[in-house]
Amino acid sequence: MALVNEHFLKLQSNYLFSDIAKKVNSFKVTHPKQKIIRMGIGDVTQPLAPAVIEAMHKAVDEMASRETFHGYGPEQGYPFLIDTIIKNDYESIGVSLEPSEVFISDGAKSDCGNIGDLLRHDNSIGVTDPVYPVYIDSNVMAGRTGTWENGTWSDVVYIPCTAENKFIPELPSRRVDIIYLCYPNNPTGTTLTKEELKKWVNYALANDAIIMYDSAYEAYIQDPNIPHSIYEIKGAKKVAIEFRSFSKTAGFTGVRCGYTVVPKEVSATTLKGERVFLNKLWLRRQCTKFNGTSYITQRGAEAVYSPEGKEQVRQTINYYMNNARLMKEGLEACGLQVYGGENAPYLWVKTPDGLSSWKFFEKLLYEVYIVSTPGVGFGPSGEGYLRLTAFGDHKDTLEAIQRIQHWMR
Amino acid sequence: MALVNEHFLKLQSNYLFSDIAKKVNSFKVTHPKQKIIRMGIGDVTQPLAPAVIEAMHKAVDEMASRETFHGYGPEQGYPFLIDTIIKNDYESIGVSLEPSEVFISDGAKSDCGNIGDLLRHDNSIGVTDPVYPVYIDSNVMAGRTGTWENGTWSDVVYIPCTAENKFIPELPSRRVDIIYLCYPNNPTGTTLTKEELKKWVNYALANDAIIMYDSAYEAYIQDPNIPHSIYEIKGAKKVAIEFRSFSKTAGFTGVRCGYTVVPKEVSATTLKGERVFLNKLWLRRQCTKFNGTSYITQRGAEAVYSPEGKEQVRQTINYYMNNARLMKEGLEACGLQVYGGENAPYLWVKTPDGLSSWKFFEKLLYEVYIVSTPGVGFGPSGEGYLRLTAFGDHKDTLEAIQRIQHWMR
Repeated sequence: MALVNEHFLKLQSNYLFSDIAKKVNSFKVTHPKQKIIRMGIGDVTQPLAPAVIEAMHKAVDEMASRETFHGYGPEQGYPFLIDTIIKNDYESIGVSLEPSEVFISDGAKSDCGNIGDLLRHDNSIGVTDPVYPVYIDSNVMAGRTGTWENGTWSDVVYIPCTAENKFIPELPSRRVDIIYLCYPNNPTGTTLTKEELKKWVNYALANDAIIMYDSAYEAYIQDPNIPHSIYEIKGAKKVAIEFRSFSKTAGFTGVRCGYTVVPKEVSATTLKGERVFLNKLWLRRQCTKFNGTSYITQRGAEAVYSPEGKEQVRQTINYYMNNARLMKEGLEACGLQVYGGENAPYLWVKTPDGLSSWKFFEKLLYEVYIVSTPGVGFGPSGEGYLRLTAFGDHKDTLEAIQRIQHWMR
Repeated sequence: MALVNEHFLKLQSNYLFSDIAKKVNSFKVTHPKQKIIRMGIGDVTQPLAPAVIEAMHKAVDEMASRETFHGYGPEQGYPFLIDTIIKNDYESIGVSLEPSEVFISDGAKSDCGNIGDLLRHDNSIGVTDPVYPVYIDSNVMAGRTGTWENGTWSDVVYIPCTAENKFIPELPSRRVDIIYLCYPNNPTGTTLTKEELKKWVNYALANDAIIMYDSAYEAYIQDPNIPHSIYEIKGAKKVAIEFRSFSKTAGFTGVRCGYTVVPKEVSATTLKGERVFLNKLWLRRQCTKFNGTSYITQRGAEAVYSPEGKEQVRQTINYYMNNARLMKEGLEACGLQVYGGENAPYLWVKTPDGLSSWKFFEKLLYEVYIVSTPGVGFGPSGEGYLRLTAFGDHKDTLEAIQRIQHWMR
């Protein structure tokens, strides 16, 4: 008799973004003529860079001829892409990595979820709150979270990040073995300075914990003092795994490419206290349960780092960050409190008049036809906030700000 | 203190194909002038079908313009591909499926490995022996296999498939909750008739077991009496999950696309005996730990089913199956016993003179410069056999047969 993994049954049946989609769809049915502006899900809207398009066409052509055809590639990715990543994303900031420490994948979401395979089911986990739901949900499935009580999981340490503490998470008071950090942050759009990040690396070093560092939004950093990689902090290579993605950097949400850095020094221990290095385990995991990322996709990702690619990608990021700036200024002019949006494509808006997240979400949808994401969907400390994304079309973004300004008066 | 998943440490440090690669590389270093012919790893060599190339170019172009750009797609795949698959691969053989029962992925290997997420760690597993290593290794990682003793895992039921039983697996004598079946079989190249497959479906129905049915090679079936899908067997929708891939069907080993069918009726039970349907759990798993397959790849896969695509893909399969036929005839003419190769791109060759798998592998490598795969690498019942693949270039295949024939005289 096959037995089900009952941890799955603890998950609430709906996913935040499905709930939102349902509300938006019902509104569309009853108001078919209203132009809805979507600032909810963090999907990009601008096309791929011409350099990427060119590289992918070339790669497709290679697949058309026996002499240049590519079959199975290395599960961990092609050296041409790994070397390019190391040179451009790490050597440029003074971080040296070996090629065997970088693993190309089909996206940061897969890796953030699958990395848990390497660790025992009874490690304790800590997350900043609000938080990207995948970190927690993938741990629920693995049985690491206890039970769902009053909007939180009993075995998860939630570390509040709110306006009150300037969105700077305090070190946990309870022991955590695995800590998820995402900076620039999704959903709040806030960042950590090197000094703040250093506290976390030192905590992990002192407590033999592992930091899962999601830096999917690092390309949006404008302030030269904000770290792009956790490996800018001394000692981080012993305790941190870093997840990166081309989704937001280069509009690859539909193309699917990311990478994960597992330094050779990162380790966990056996029950007997023997130290085991995770790099080889991740390689083994990927060789067994993954078969590499599309060759065409990897050639596209490589082109992101060509001189033309870099310039084109920078222009698109500027386009989104210009949206973010206008949104921030426009909303602040209405008297709203707005966080983030300076080094990230996300704005974290305090709801006015003490409205709940869902209530403000509904008002924006029903009265000005704007889709946002209720902050409480990201965790209890998200209550009283909304997330808006700057990934929209520029004109739509201006219109959305105008609608809100008009409505707030 | 982060604790490692110690089940990973039970895995032997090397993977079969890495061991082979090492031996081949050492030989190349010492014999740089010898032309090695590779018939080991099951990778294709022929280019993608022109219809697929055309569709992928078109999809790349769509990504270049804001109006036709595709960002995040549905995690379970685009309806255009799901509907095409159902119509062509299932309705054509009298099997009806709902769109929500088909999940597009980046390949059968990922899904065969990840499907274990849905099931408890203490289900017992059964495999035909020899077997594709991924089924077992992914279960080792999840803690379902016990300990490694004398070449087998203590908690795995191995069901021998050898020349003695005509490669027809007997129903297991010990209870198994999850059974992996792969037909046409990798590595033996043999098939099961509907009657044989029916025994397994009935076993699963009677024992409330789940069959993981890998039909990645179904496109190679020539005999009209061999089932293409397990759902051709009555009752299978209650007990079987089917894995398919475009890798071998259409040369997608470097493009990465497959799909998994999880019928709504397939279920497992809780410890209390409540029945839980796996379709929704797989959707939840994929939505949490996967972000969909590349849009460009999915458009390429769709083109496999166009009239031109079908014809082009059929020609390539004929090319490989012609290799298989010539290999089989050529090797049999040397007095070797050869199985498979009639409805599958794999030939399973009995080693002559009672040689061990590795000994015959080494002889072929060192004396005729041909790379094969030692049968014992696929399990204890593979000892005394070698796997050869028909995916090579036609001329190389002819040369390989001639080399072996000359050497055997």
